[in-house]
Amino acid sequence: MRLIDRIIQNERTELLNTTRATSAVVLSSRIRLARNLADSVFPARANKSQRCAIVAKCGTAIESLKGIKNPVLLAIDELNDRDRQVLRERHLISKELCEEPEGAAVVMDQRQGCSVMINEEDHLRIQFLKSGFNLKALWKKVDAFDSQLEQSLNFAFSPEYGYLTACPTNLGTGLRASVMMHLPGLVLSGHMERVVRAVNHLGITVRGLFGEGSEASGHVFQISNQQTLGESEATIIERLAQVLKTVIDQEINARFCQLEQKSIQILDQIGRSYGLLQNAYHISSDEAMNRLSFLRLAVDFNMLPDKCRVLIDRLFIACQPAHIQAAAAAQLDADMRDCKRAEIIREELKQLPKLDMNFTAN
Amino acid sequence: MRLIDRIIQNERTELLNTTRATSAVVLSSRIRLARNLADSVFPARANKSQRCAIVAKCGTAIESLKGIKNPVLLAIDELNDRDRQVLRERHLISKELCEEPEGAAVVMDQRQGCSVMINEEDHLRIQFLKSGFNLKALWKKVDAFDSQLEQSLNFAFSPEYGYLTACPTNLGTGLRASVMMHLPGLVLSGHMERVVRAVNHLGITVRGLFGEGSEASGHVFQISNQQTLGESEATIIERLAQVLKTVIDQEINARFCQLEQKSIQILDQIGRSYGLLQNAYHISSDEAMNRLSFLRLAVDFNMLPDKCRVLIDRLFIACQPAHIQAAAAAQLDADMRDCKRAEIIREELKQLPKLDMNFTAN
Repeated sequence: MRLIDRIIQNERTELLNTTRATSAVVLSSRIRLARNLADSVFPARANKSQRCAIVAKCGTAIESLKGIKNPVLLAIDELNDRDRQVLRERHLISKELCEEPEGAAVVMDQRQGCSVMINEEDHLRIQFLKSGFNLKALWKKVDAFDSQLEQSLNFAFSPEYGYLTACPTNLGTGLRASVMMHLPGLVLSGHMERVVRAVNHLGITVRGLFGEGSEASGHVFQISNQQTLGESEATIIERLAQVLKTVIDQEINARFCQLEQKSIQILDQIGRSYGLLQNAYHISSDEAMNRLSFLRLAVDFNMLPDKCRVLIDRLFIACQPAHIQAAAAAQLDADMRDCKRAEIIREELKQLPKLDMNFTAN
Repeated sequence: MRLIDRIIQNERTELLNTTRATSAVVLSSRIRLARNLADSVFPARANKSQRCAIVAKCGTAIESLKGIKNPVLLAIDELNDRDRQVLRERHLISKELCEEPEGAAVVMDQRQGCSVMINEEDHLRIQFLKSGFNLKALWKKVDAFDSQLEQSLNFAFSPEYGYLTACPTNLGTGLRASVMMHLPGLVLSGHMERVVRAVNHLGITVRGLFGEGSEASGHVFQISNQQTLGESEATIIERLAQVLKTVIDQEINARFCQLEQKSIQILDQIGRSYGLLQNAYHISSDEAMNRLSFLRLAVDFNMLPDKCRVLIDRLFIACQPAHIQAAAAAQLDADMRDCKRAEIIREELKQLPKLDMNFTAN
């Protein structure tokens, strides 16, 4: 079995099979640092042999760290499209990393909670991710990892500007903290646009499920800091966390307003989603996401037991196109993928208890 | 309790609670005869007192017949809009009967399998209806009823033309036989138009669920003879029955072609309908009809037990707007009606077994 297949088939990972308590609003948190080697040209300017030298150097340094368990290095040009797409759907690599596959690589740990992209826009993109709202714990881990790595690698650093990066928007801390939020309340109440504008003013960006330019299917949004310069990492994270707490409050508030003012519409959407997901034989990724969103809302409203949330969060990822291809172990066209997706969802939701409509929303 | 309320609340009727074997394609059969009194002007030309005299005369004659059990006479101008609409949804009266309510009436039996409209387009419209495909049995009943009635009433009759009617399209036998057919196979395969054209050439008309100009929601069509003149009643019925048998064959054939060629789409529609109807909290009459249509198809494909067909056929009528109003015993706007409809359907389908997808279509 190929290494990548073992990685793909491993579902005991941070995002696919969390045993931790999940949050009603936050699906997962991520922190990434952009780092570059002081003595090498930026990836976009490096030729093939330079890029390969960087992969070799960084790969060795990362694999010898204590902070990463059973690390695996994958060369992007040795992966096929589907494999790359699966890693993207798990948020372990980016679209940009695949655009120049020669001399690009990723190192990840067994639980897939840590991934380091080599020769993306910067030499290194160090990322830690965790289910739930966990920015501070994540920062500790990333910080320790970065410090360890800095002992063996010489990072490009300016006393005036901080860490140097290929794009000036990452200059300074090179830090981007982002949180995946489930915001059906704000979307359904029509308040999402207002919230986006408000957080933009505070230097915070809102994107769809798969980053820049992607759609927010399933009412899932990626919210992250924009600024990397002029503040300490702790301050950036603290400020983001404060804003996100406000967004969480507004989301919870919006949900209960919706439930009060439009209870039938909400119950109807939840009921229909519950019935559809368990009985459909053909479902697109987008419809699945939107239906799963209402099922997650049902858990938040105590209509389904809490443990169902882990299952739903897992399906948010497992019903993405490349995951469906991987599960089928075959090349499927869009139509066959929609059938396989429906089959997987039906199977996973087989043991779903009845919706408890005498719920007490809390 | 008002008489009309007893009639409305009586669900042990021919169409709402049949214990007879139902058919995979034919929901119900109806035969009606148009008759006029020889010595009275046609209803549209009669003044109020003339119309009332006709009601009195015919009412007495009908109520004294042996062929009608516990007959009830209802004056249309004493019914409110909802009551009239419920009777229309049960196919017991027509829209035309309600257009001039003064001096218009209907006599029906307890099981609501026989109804005689007085002062519709003709003085008398005698109708018998029965679940399933039952034209010949119905004709025997109507014929006997008509013969009995003719002993006490003097019908307008010409030795050359036969029974005289207000509209020449009913002249002769005054007979219209019609069958309510469930034709999802022909609709989904796109063959319905071809079938309509073919039967039109044979003097047979295809209409929607509630007659002329109505939509065929739930893939339900009313198919009836057009010609009333120049043939005996037995010939008309025999010819219609022959054509309908061909339509039934084509429908069954179309269903299995669909199931072979587009099985996933069909299973998906059936699964979704099953899930939606049991879990929706807001559903329009049209969506309900179309979803129920797929549920009926599931019974025909042996995915649900045969006894479910009676329940579904009942819901085809019980989820119509006035029936929903009557069930709620309140004046509901369209929105509240959609909620009540969803509630009734959820309740009725509570005991629905799981879909058996290892079905053997027969």
